[in-house]
Amino acid sequence: MTCWRVMSDELLKIGLLGRGTVGAAFAELVEERADEVARSTGRRPVISGVLTRSEGDAGAIIAEADLIVEVMGGTEPTREYVLAALNGGLPVVSANKQLLSRHGPELWAAAEAGGGQIRFEAAVAAVVPVIRVLSESLNGAQIDRIHGIVNGTTNFILSEMASTGASYEAALAQAQQLGFAEADPTEDVSGADAAAKMALLAQLAFGGWVALDDVVFEGIEQLTTEDIAYAREFGLALKLLGTAERVGDAISVRVHPAFLYAAHPLASINGSFNAVTIESPAITEITLSGPGAGGPQTASAILGDVVSVLSGVPAIEPPQGEAKLTGAVHSAFYLHLEVADKPGVLAQVARLLGEHGVSVKTVAQSGLGDNARLVMVTHSILESDFYSACDQIGELEFVRAAPRAIRVIDEQFIG
Amino acid sequence: MTCWRVMSDELLKIGLLGRGTVGAAFAELVEERADEVARSTGRRPVISGVLTRSEGDAGAIIAEADLIVEVMGGTEPTREYVLAALNGGLPVVSANKQLLSRHGPELWAAAEAGGGQIRFEAAVAAVVPVIRVLSESLNGAQIDRIHGIVNGTTNFILSEMASTGASYEAALAQAQQLGFAEADPTEDVSGADAAAKMALLAQLAFGGWVALDDVVFEGIEQLTTEDIAYAREFGLALKLLGTAERVGDAISVRVHPAFLYAAHPLASINGSFNAVTIESPAITEITLSGPGAGGPQTASAILGDVVSVLSGVPAIEPPQGEAKLTGAVHSAFYLHLEVADKPGVLAQVARLLGEHGVSVKTVAQSGLGDNARLVMVTHSILESDFYSACDQIGELEFVRAAPRAIRVIDEQFIG
Repeated sequence: MTCWRVMSDELLKIGLLGRGTVGAAFAELVEERADEVARSTGRRPVISGVLTRSEGDAGAIIAEADLIVEVMGGTEPTREYVLAALNGGLPVVSANKQLLSRHGPELWAAAEAGGGQIRFEAAVAAVVPVIRVLSESLNGAQIDRIHGIVNGTTNFILSEMASTGASYEAALAQAQQLGFAEADPTEDVSGADAAAKMALLAQLAFGGWVALDDVVFEGIEQLTTEDIAYAREFGLALKLLGTAERVGDAISVRVHPAFLYAAHPLASINGSFNAVTIESPAITEITLSGPGAGGPQTASAILGDVVSVLSGVPAIEPPQGEAKLTGAVHSAFYLHLEVADKPGVLAQVARLLGEHGVSVKTVAQSGLGDNARLVMVTHSILESDFYSACDQIGELEFVRAAPRAIRVIDEQFIG
Repeated sequence: MTCWRVMSDELLKIGLLGRGTVGAAFAELVEERADEVARSTGRRPVISGVLTRSEGDAGAIIAEADLIVEVMGGTEPTREYVLAALNGGLPVVSANKQLLSRHGPELWAAAEAGGGQIRFEAAVAAVVPVIRVLSESLNGAQIDRIHGIVNGTTNFILSEMASTGASYEAALAQAQQLGFAEADPTEDVSGADAAAKMALLAQLAFGGWVALDDVVFEGIEQLTTEDIAYAREFGLALKLLGTAERVGDAISVRVHPAFLYAAHPLASINGSFNAVTIESPAITEITLSGPGAGGPQTASAILGDVVSVLSGVPAIEPPQGEAKLTGAVHSAFYLHLEVADKPGVLAQVARLLGEHGVSVKTVAQSGLGDNARLVMVTHSILESDFYSACDQIGELEFVRAAPRAIRVIDEQFIG
């Protein structure tokens, strides 16, 4: 038994907005770790008020609190409450990627004007400390590119499809049954959730504001087990990949399915885990991985931010103006064609690719009755050039089905 | 061209102790990133003095500097210089794991007395931000265990042996040729280098002081390609693994070769990369990986620490007293026996294992002329009990060679 003792610690009154899975886990964690936090920071955290759907008055909770933890989600009325807290000079710790990626400029302006601050480690990859590493460890380094598996639902579904041969529909049903996907999975499987997270990472890596609406994204709904099986022949793993990278004097932020070579650090991230790879000329690359969701994991990330506020870790820098975005990016592609099995087909496909500057790296052809299947991987090419070639190939009379194209991340890693 | 402008930033004068690979890379990086650091912190870093083997006066360099970067290595006279800086109230950024793990209490006391601080991200896994994550993100979380591949030389050698079937000697020669191993590789291949790093990680994770002398370690010199080939049949990868974990009310810190199941996050870390997995009930586990050495990478970690000092990130907490250490740890084992091929042998081995409480998980036997090879993997057992059984087995008359035992890290990971 721990001896009773007089604790002279000043309290830190936390106003908790939201008490779903994460809110409840956070309240529990605060109680469990209060002694340790008091020991290391000199202030003892307590939950001074809780706002739920049915109970609590937001204004009164904010007025009483020293710090606000926002885990209610959504953008309204959440935005209003967070603005009130920031205008009042309070630090806000939020797990709300939608709010931050849609209303960032307004929130950062309120934080600056009111003297508050916003921390949001839990908004991306839960307790995987990617926000801290970007805003602190690599503050001072030039970052060239971030690749991320930042949505656990889609990574679980793709891992299931790859390991069991299940269809997309069956893997999704499995994810729903195990609690890895919601009843309406649209936000996750469409890539929208990952897009919001990549917008936040891009802001930290490159300094400018990236609005969610500026992130282009594609989801995983169209992927087939056949794509995965074929790609395995080339040694590729299929992931829903977020990318934020410098392209000339602009940046590109996007989310789409992509094949990774087996040696890529993200290729071995399976199940509901998240992982982020940060590339910089000075550091080569570092990879951070771990559970990307879950009540206790997200709560732990939030408590880490609370401790940072208490111990005086400098506030995260607000974005410096708007980022200049571009869509003119390069990628290698996997291209899957169903064609009539007759002479000259490969030659015509190759000619069209060549005319658009697309160079083929590997090719595999297999018979299929009267038809043949042509699967190839290209070298890196401007995406718009590839799609021009692909569209023209789709119009050739011997092509039996719409061409299927999936991006491939080039081998470029040491290890 | 960037316009010329008046910069009003106050200078941060850095005294650089040592100008080997890392020191030179750091001086270059400071010049390259000075604008960015000045923008984000308001102070412009400059190298105000450099101590090399042949030039510079340590006392004068320290007296003039606002901050000391120590990359000279060794413990004497380095210790003396670092103490002088700390006693003078200067922040010291060091990459010197030997100094820190041998003379920690003295250094931390000087920092507290003089008002200085010590940061040492670069001392473990270079730019992989494990020090920061332990001291900040997870400050407030209870950590149960850290597993680390924290020596790039040995990981390169073991990866070579696994992928090419090369002998230890051939793989070491290859590592030396490529600059991944020194002419005298003892410090790395014996596990001593990894032991110093694990002592530092244990201190941060568990709060107490762990002296290098208290870390038990074994190296990789005795490992054979046969061990690796056999273990592959069981789906295992061989790594030099550092472990720091809670065992009851004590902690264990150790370094030894270990087999990992393929799904373990460290199993896929190949080549000269480093990686650390941190386990905590609240977070499940997170893994950080990247290049564990290299001039620019180490310099980048040092600059990250300099920026932290400048921007007021709280100092790393000094150790709270001495850690209580234990050697009574549990592990599963791979056991390789060469025995006479005759009836009753397996029964006798199994009986001896059973008498010591060792339970066998998998076993494979293969003929070898008059002899047979018996390879098994056990369930987790108190190490001393396993070694008692193993020693007795070694004395059985039908055993043809010294038994070979290598630890196996149990499957315990989600993903």
